[in-house]
This record gives sequence, C-alpha cells and structure tokens, in this order.
Amino acid sequence: MTNRKYLTEYVSAFTHSLVNQGVKNVVISPGSRSTPLAYACMREEGLTVYRQIDERSAAYFALGMAKASGEPVMLLCTSGTAAANYFPAIVEAFYARIPLIVVTADRPHELREVGAPQAINQINLFGSHVKWSVDLPMPEEENRLDFLVRHLHRSVKNAMSEPRGPVHLNVPFREPLLLDFEQQYKSSADIEHLQGESKLPSPVEEFLVETIQTEKGLLVIGEMTEKMPAEFWSFIRKLNWPVLADPLSNVRSNIDESCKDLIIDSYDAILKSSGFKSSMVPDAVIRLGPQPVSKPLTLFLASVKPKIYAVFDESPMMRDAQSVVTHHIQASTEGLWELPIQTKADNLYTKKWTAASELFWQLAEVHCNEKLDEGVLAKVLFEELDQCDLIVSSSMPIRDTDTYFKSTACDIMIYANRGANGIDGVVSTAFGVQSVKKRPAFLFIGDLSFLHDMNGLIASKMQETDLTIVVMNNDGGGIFSYLPQSNEERYFEDLFGTPTGLKFEDAARMYDADYAAVETKGQFLEALRKDKQKPVKIIEVFTDRETNVRVHRELWNRLVEELDGQ
Amino acid sequence: MTNRKYLTEYVSAFTHSLVNQGVKNVVISPGSRSTPLAYACMREEGLTVYRQIDERSAAYFALGMAKASGEPVMLLCTSGTAAANYFPAIVEAFYARIPLIVVTADRPHELREVGAPQAINQINLFGSHVKWSVDLPMPEEENRLDFLVRHLHRSVKNAMSEPRGPVHLNVPFREPLLLDFEQQYKSSADIEHLQGESKLPSPVEEFLVETIQTEKGLLVIGEMTEKMPAEFWSFIRKLNWPVLADPLSNVRSNIDESCKDLIIDSYDAILKSSGFKSSMVPDAVIRLGPQPVSKPLTLFLASVKPKIYAVFDESPMMRDAQSVVTHHIQASTEGLWELPIQTKADNLYTKKWTAASELFWQLAEVHCNEKLDEGVLAKVLFEELDQCDLIVSSSMPIRDTDTYFKSTACDIMIYANRGANGIDGVVSTAFGVQSVKKRPAFLFIGDLSFLHDMNGLIASKMQETDLTIVVMNNDGGGIFSYLPQSNEERYFEDLFGTPTGLKFEDAARMYDADYAAVETKGQFLEALRKDKQKPVKIIEVFTDRETNVRVHRELWNRLVEELDGQ
Repeated sequence: MTNRKYLTEYVSAFTHSLVNQGVKNVVISPGSRSTPLAYACMREEGLTVYRQIDERSAAYFALGMAKASGEPVMLLCTSGTAAANYFPAIVEAFYARIPLIVVTADRPHELREVGAPQAINQINLFGSHVKWSVDLPMPEEENRLDFLVRHLHRSVKNAMSEPRGPVHLNVPFREPLLLDFEQQYKSSADIEHLQGESKLPSPVEEFLVETIQTEKGLLVIGEMTEKMPAEFWSFIRKLNWPVLADPLSNVRSNIDESCKDLIIDSYDAILKSSGFKSSMVPDAVIRLGPQPVSKPLTLFLASVKPKIYAVFDESPMMRDAQSVVTHHIQASTEGLWELPIQTKADNLYTKKWTAASELFWQLAEVHCNEKLDEGVLAKVLFEELDQCDLIVSSSMPIRDTDTYFKSTACDIMIYANRGANGIDGVVSTAFGVQSVKKRPAFLFIGDLSFLHDMNGLIASKMQETDLTIVVMNNDGGGIFSYLPQSNEERYFEDLFGTPTGLKFEDAARMYDADYAAVETKGQFLEALRKDKQKPVKIIEVFTDRETNVRVHRELWNRLVEELDGQ
Repeated sequence: MTNRKYLTEYVSAFTHSLVNQGVKNVVISPGSRSTPLAYACMREEGLTVYRQIDERSAAYFALGMAKASGEPVMLLCTSGTAAANYFPAIVEAFYARIPLIVVTADRPHELREVGAPQAINQINLFGSHVKWSVDLPMPEEENRLDFLVRHLHRSVKNAMSEPRGPVHLNVPFREPLLLDFEQQYKSSADIEHLQGESKLPSPVEEFLVETIQTEKGLLVIGEMTEKMPAEFWSFIRKLNWPVLADPLSNVRSNIDESCKDLIIDSYDAILKSSGFKSSMVPDAVIRLGPQPVSKPLTLFLASVKPKIYAVFDESPMMRDAQSVVTHHIQASTEGLWELPIQTKADNLYTKKWTAASELFWQLAEVHCNEKLDEGVLAKVLFEELDQCDLIVSSSMPIRDTDTYFKSTACDIMIYANRGANGIDGVVSTAFGVQSVKKRPAFLFIGDLSFLHDMNGLIASKMQETDLTIVVMNNDGGGIFSYLPQSNEERYFEDLFGTPTGLKFEDAARMYDADYAAVETKGQFLEALRKDKQKPVKIIEVFTDRETNVRVHRELWNRLVEELDGQ
C-alpha cells in the first residue's frame, strides 16, 4: 500500500461522485497542485473535459455552460492566484444563481501561510459569494470515502437548490501527485436523493386568482434561462394581460403565434411617454424572475406603486431595488400555470398596449430604413437569426436588444450576465453556452467588453466551436454618452470614453478567425450571411458614439410625440 | 446648498488626504459609480492618473508601481464584478507585502442585495487578503471630514507599516454623481505623523556578533525591491561569508566590485552536487527577506538543519516553509549593517564557494557557446542589459534568471511577483514598474504568462512607456517538463503542455509594437540591439520544451560531475 493508492482512490471517488450527482462537464486550467484531480477528470468516463489557460475566462466559460444547460459545472485549478482569478465569475454566478462546483487544489497545512510558493489562504477564499465553502481533508490511509461521497452530494445539491449558486471545495494534496492509472475505482456507497416539490397552498392560489380578476394587470417577465413550457402559453392566453417580456425572458422568441398580440417587447420605448404612462397605471403586477433591464419600466413601476406587485422568487433574497413589491411569493412559477382560471374576454388595457407596441414597430421600420446606428444594425442582426443562441454583453448591447429584439416564433435563446451586469467574461460565457448547446451561437458585444475578455478566444484553440462575434466598435465606453456625465465635457474622454484606438482584425488573425470590417447595413448583412470558414467569425462594426445617441433618441422622441399626442 | 456641494467636499477631502499621506499615483478603470472620485483624482494636482480598462490588469499595474517605487498606489473602480477583478493582484500584494490603497465605489445601502444592477456585497470583499477593509459613510450634509481625513491617514499608514500590504476602502455614492468643479477644497485639519524607529536591542546584537564568529556561515538574501545601501557592502566585506543572492535580491547587480568574490550567484546549480553539499554544511545561516527561488538551496538548508538559521523578518508571519529557522529576528535589516564587527581574515569556506561559482561560469561559457535553449538565450539577454529594469515572470523565466544572471556592476533592478508566484498579471506589473522608474524596462516571460495578461498591453495605448518584451514561446507550459508529471505521457499535453499554437506577431500589430521573431542567438542579439521605433518592442523567441530540459540538464550534470569529482 502506497500513498499513491490512497490518492488514487480519493480522487476517483471524488470525480465519480460528482458524475453520480449529475456533473457532466469540467473546465480545467493547467497547474501542478491540481494534478491528481485533473488526471481523475480525464479518466472519468462521465465527464467531458474543457481546458482554458486563463482561469478568469475558464470560470466564465463554466458559467456559460451552467447557465445554458441548467446543470452544475465543475471548475478545477491549482493553488494560489489561479483560484483568485475565478472570483469575478463566482460573484456573477452567485447573483445570477448559477450552479458551479468550484474546486481549488491547495497545498497541505504545513505549507500554508509559511512563505511556501503558490500557497495563499484559500479557506473561505470567495467570502460571502459562494453558498458553501469547505476545506476537505487530505488523501490518507484512513480515507473516509463515505464522508467524501456525502460531502460531494451536499455540494452539488446545495449548488442546485434554489436559489442556485456556486459552492467551493478546497482540496489539499501533498506530493507526490501522480496516480496509479491501473487502479480501478471501487464504487463507494452513494446515497439516493429524493427531492420534494414546492406547491402553491390554497390561500396563495386564491390570492392570485383574485388578483388576476382585474383588466389592468401586467405580467412582467425577467431573465429566464429555460424555454417556457406549453402551459405558460395557454396560461397567458387565458389571462389576456400584456406580457412585458425582458429580452432575457426568452419569451420574445419561440413564441406561440396565438399569443403574438400579448407579448409586449417595446415597453422600454413606450414607457418614455408620460402621456401613455399616466393613462395606463396598472392595478396589479405579477413579476416572474429578476427585475428587467429596462430603466423606464423600473421607474414606471416605482412611481405608480401598484396596489399589488407580486413577485415569484424562490429565494428569500427577493429582488426589489425600488421597495415597491407588495407580495413575495417564494415558490417556483409552475404553480401559476396550473391556476384554475377562465379565459378572459377582450381587454381594452391589453389592446392599448398592443397598439402602442405596433406603433413602435411601424416607426422603427421607417427609422431603420432611413437611419444607421448601432441600434439599427442590432435589428438587422436579430432579423437574421434562427435555430441559434444569442449571447448579449452588458452596457449598450443588452439595451439595444431590449429596444430592437422583436418577438418571433424563431428558435433563438438569449443569454446575458445580469447577476452583476459586468462587461467582463462575456466572450468566455458565449463559448461556454455554445459548447453545451452545440448549435451556432452569436455574440453581440461592444469593443471594451470584447477587449476585456479577449482571452476567451483561447477556447477556440482548444475545442470545437461555432461562434459569430459581432463587435460594435465605437472606440470606448458607449453607454456613458447616455449618462449625465456626458454633459460635462471636462475629463469625459479620459474617464468615460476611454478610447484605445484598438481594432480587432489582428486579433482575428492571431486566433485564426474569419473577419470582416463593416460600416453599412449592406456590408453587415453580407458579412453575416457569408458562410463561415473557421470556427469563429468576427464581424467588427465601426460606429460612432455621438451618432448612436442622436439616432437612438430620434426614434424614441418620434414615438413619444405620437403617444403623447393620442 | 446642494448634494453636489457635500459630494464635492467629500471626494476632494478624500483625494487631498491621500496626497498628503504620500500617494502620488492612481490607476482608474472606467465606470459610472466611481465618477465623483475619478473627477476628484483628475483635478487633484498631486496625483498622476493612469487608466486601464481591464481591472485585473489595472491592479497588477498598480502593484508594479508600488513595488518599484516603495510608495502606496491608489486603485479606483466602479461597483460590481469590476472590483472582483482586482482580487488576484490583491492576493499577490498581500503576500508580497506591497502597499495598495484599493478604492471601490459602491451603491448606497438601499441598493445593496436587493437585485439592483452592478450591486454586489462589497463589504470585506477581499476577505483575509487585505490588511484592513472599511465601508465608508456616504457624502451627506453632516460630512465628518475630520473623521474621513483620519481614516485615510489610517489606511495609508496601515498599508505602509511592516509588513506592508493592501487596504480596502469601500465608498458608497448616491446619484447624482457630478461634482461642482468651481468649488475649491478647503484644507481640513490633517494630522502629523511621527514614526518611531526599530532598533536591535543589545542581546540581539550580541547574539548576532557571536553567530558571525564562525567561518562556515552563509548570508542568504531573498527578494529585496530596493537597492542596498553602501553600508551593506562594507558589512559583507567585513563579514567575509559567501552571500547567496537570489536574483530578486538585487545584490547581483549594482555590486561593489570589492565584494565580487563574495556574491555567489550560481548556488542553484552548485547545490545539485551532493559531494559539494556534504562537505559544505554551514554552522550558521542568516537570511534577509523571503525564501529564495532556488529549490536546491531550500532542500539543502532543510536537510542540513543548520544549528543557527536566523531570519530577519519584520512580520510576525515569519517565512519558513521547511520549519528549519531557529531564530526569528523581527526587525529591519539596517541594524545588521551597524553591528560592531571586525574585518575577518581569509575564509576557506568562502573560497570554496567562490571557486565552485567560478567553475560554474567557466562551464556555462563553454556550454552557452555550443548550445542553444531558453537558458542560453536568457544569458544572452542579461549580458545586454544596463541602466534598466528587468521584470521576470514566474515559472521558467525566474528559474533561468536564477541560473544565468551573473553578478555585475551594471545598474539593473530585477522585479518579479513572488508573493504567490502566479503567472498572471506579469505584463501589467512590468508596465507599472516602467511607469515609475521612467527608464527602459525589459520583461522576460513565457508564452502562457504573456497570453494570460495580454490585456496588460492596453497600457501602451494610454500612456508613454518604454518596454521590451522577450517572450519565450515554447507553445505551452514549459515548467511541467521538469516535473514528475512529464514521466507520465498519458494526458501530459492535454493537462500540462496545453499547446495553443498561438504566436504573437498579430498581437504586436494590434498594439502597434515593434516585433521580431527569432530562433538563434544571432537573431536574438540583433533584435535586442535594434533601435526601438515604438513604445513597446516584442521579441518572440521560438524554443522547444524538450530541448530546454535536455540542454539545461547537460550543464547541470557537467557541473555536478566536476564538483562531485573534487
């Protein structure tokens, strides 16, 4: 019996248990201390191994996979600052409620905090931004594999219980770090998991049925990473309320055509009209998911303070940044579809919303034919998509998606990182989404965000992929031109515009990607439609920050004029 | 009186106090919530503002500045994952004892943990890896500027007290975020700082004088980021012990010629000889600074367990990964130079060390004339340097520097990130060093490390610089070929070699840098000597991992044969 035997059985039990708990994918960054677990992952049949050299990108890649698959994804890195590089994605995963199993290899106790190389204090490394953090024991003669198996059970079930999120396992290893590859894993007693179901109790059902009586109701849907079931569509048809659908709700696509009139996708523009707002105060609002991206919607609800504003949120940490929610329903949304309600007749309130939305799209059509800016090009992009996934960066791309993504029966799923709304890690998130969805993916991103995670492209050198990246290059931070800071010329370019003058043709060449530089609608369409030769296609769209603000406002002002005049 | 007035006086007092405490440089990343402090930094005369879009790189840039200047450097970013991106550099700064004043803007209390955008829990965000973390009050009518000024005093003095390190200030702002630029800052009462001095008490002096009596003594010097004073050189001349100087000790350069024989720069190779080791057991070791890079030296001291192994370390967290230190002298090293000792006569023990070192360099000369690998090219590089700074990455570059950097009277300062020995953030650290030293800098780095922080190059688009980057591109993780993992072919390239096939000519073009691809000594010399046209020059050296291991071992084996045969 050698140390190698204990080490081999320990790491085999480790990866085997994770697979038994439903983990299928692991993202590994190269390093020495993590060697035993890396080997175990490689030889574990149930695991697919992805690799990424930059741990920050690796973690965002795993986040994308977990977000798009709804499954827990394992991360593995060596000791030291490698682990600290995971932090941004872990914070995002915590607030976006994404299940990550973060495994950091560590040095044994006698090499911690004594000046040994690559040894940092990894206990509770991610602070309050993981659901659980545990420092596991070292592999040893008295391996308590029964305990290990149960702790891995706890880890995965913890990550997958609502609200989902990241958990952290710190695993110390002493040298030598090599396994005995001949040694087979003998299955240790795994335990059965039997999951209870959350149901709406009768008083809650009654409250909802009562609430739903009003005509002046709004169903607001924030980010949803899974496709809605058929029951959802028949429910909203019966409900006959306007459904204000965030672009990330994923109910603007794959829509049931019979509900077309109900999906209001242009409320962000509509709610810039004070006339419309004052005449359309709702009696009740039911919200599913987090707060939508739209600031006008947030301000509208905060100012009218609906008598009933009920939010479905399975977490006790209910999301309500304006303190206007009146009812927190801590339950899954499925109970809603099962409510015993009658199909409701014509609803004037809904009709007015539908009409306003149709007006927006009429104006938008004209506007987009005549004008050119990032928003117009976003619309061009969206109209080209089907049977694919769309990953949208923070800052202007998500706002342009909110404005210009029109509801459609096409099969498009939209993803973004809205836990903390960072512009970091977005390229990697897109590659992660693509790697589990295994169909063409499109990334819609600004130049600063693309630059921030250019290392995400390393993924394309280590695995198969199919990603088209549309970079809106306005040479700097476009969103600041919409903020009050832009009225103060002093320091504006230094602090907010931050132009770098960087262009991405050379980046495309370095990573052996297709590349096109475009400035017009025609060039853009041509680049989008051209067959991909390489796993990654980068379309760099050169735009101008000042034009963007002006042209965006022209459409909004035109709509507001019309709505206010009604 | 408006909110803007309170905001303006608050942030003005903030930056003004930092300047009064000795902060001269700030690195800002673009963001909205940090606007008030960003404005205050811009208009603060005593502050130089640097900008970096990627917060991870920004923090490593600040780390490089603080390391090379010995002064506290301020970091400023917006709320959310932006702040989390600072984490790797903060961990490095904590263990490398570098003073950073990390300022994160935050949302006000009513927008924290309620689902508001870009709001994460920033309280104690960096856990145990900062010396202090404080959540400051919001600017308000009752601004307690007296308290603010004192807290900023505490922050900077905390960061600068031994052991130095990062401190974290979290600063909430409520909108609107604009300042009144007409409003002048009225100096609030700053306080005087009067610093005590640490002296060696008589018993400690007596212990050291007694210890120094032996002939068989070693003075070991780890990382030192400041040039040694003249007193150091006269002390070691009198002491007449071999001085085992880590490449980061910065006593291999700027040497006093009269001490040339004492500076042993090749101990890493010499201590591979068991014959030499067994005949050269020291009676006493005095170490300054952290443990040197050399593993042979570490193993030698751990195995011989010197009767006296005294370490000067101003921190209670004394560095001793092998538990062999016998005396922890918690004091600055200056007391050592002032010890009342007599010049010691000829020392046979020292002479043997000097002779072994001379033998190494004779063999190395022949070896380097005949052979070609990364080590040989490293020697070529070092011999070209003078009046400049050299920044060395972790993994193989620091080890090649240890082997091939020969002591010299030339003015070269060497820096590396050895707090946690990460390969991350090194490009940014180099730019940071250059920006305070304001003379030519050279970065010696491997391909994975360069790729990890390619975003460090953004610095070259936002400020003046003068950096030559020598990238050893062996297409993957070179150090793993020296580890036991390399004896196991299975999974080796997948997990450790991790070749990406990436080359950096396109990266050079993207960032408008000079570029040369080289494979031979002649090409390398030519590229090094060619006048720089651009602020950054990238020399990509194509090498081969297998050759590197073989050729390195040839020299080591040759030396060991000779020494063992003596």
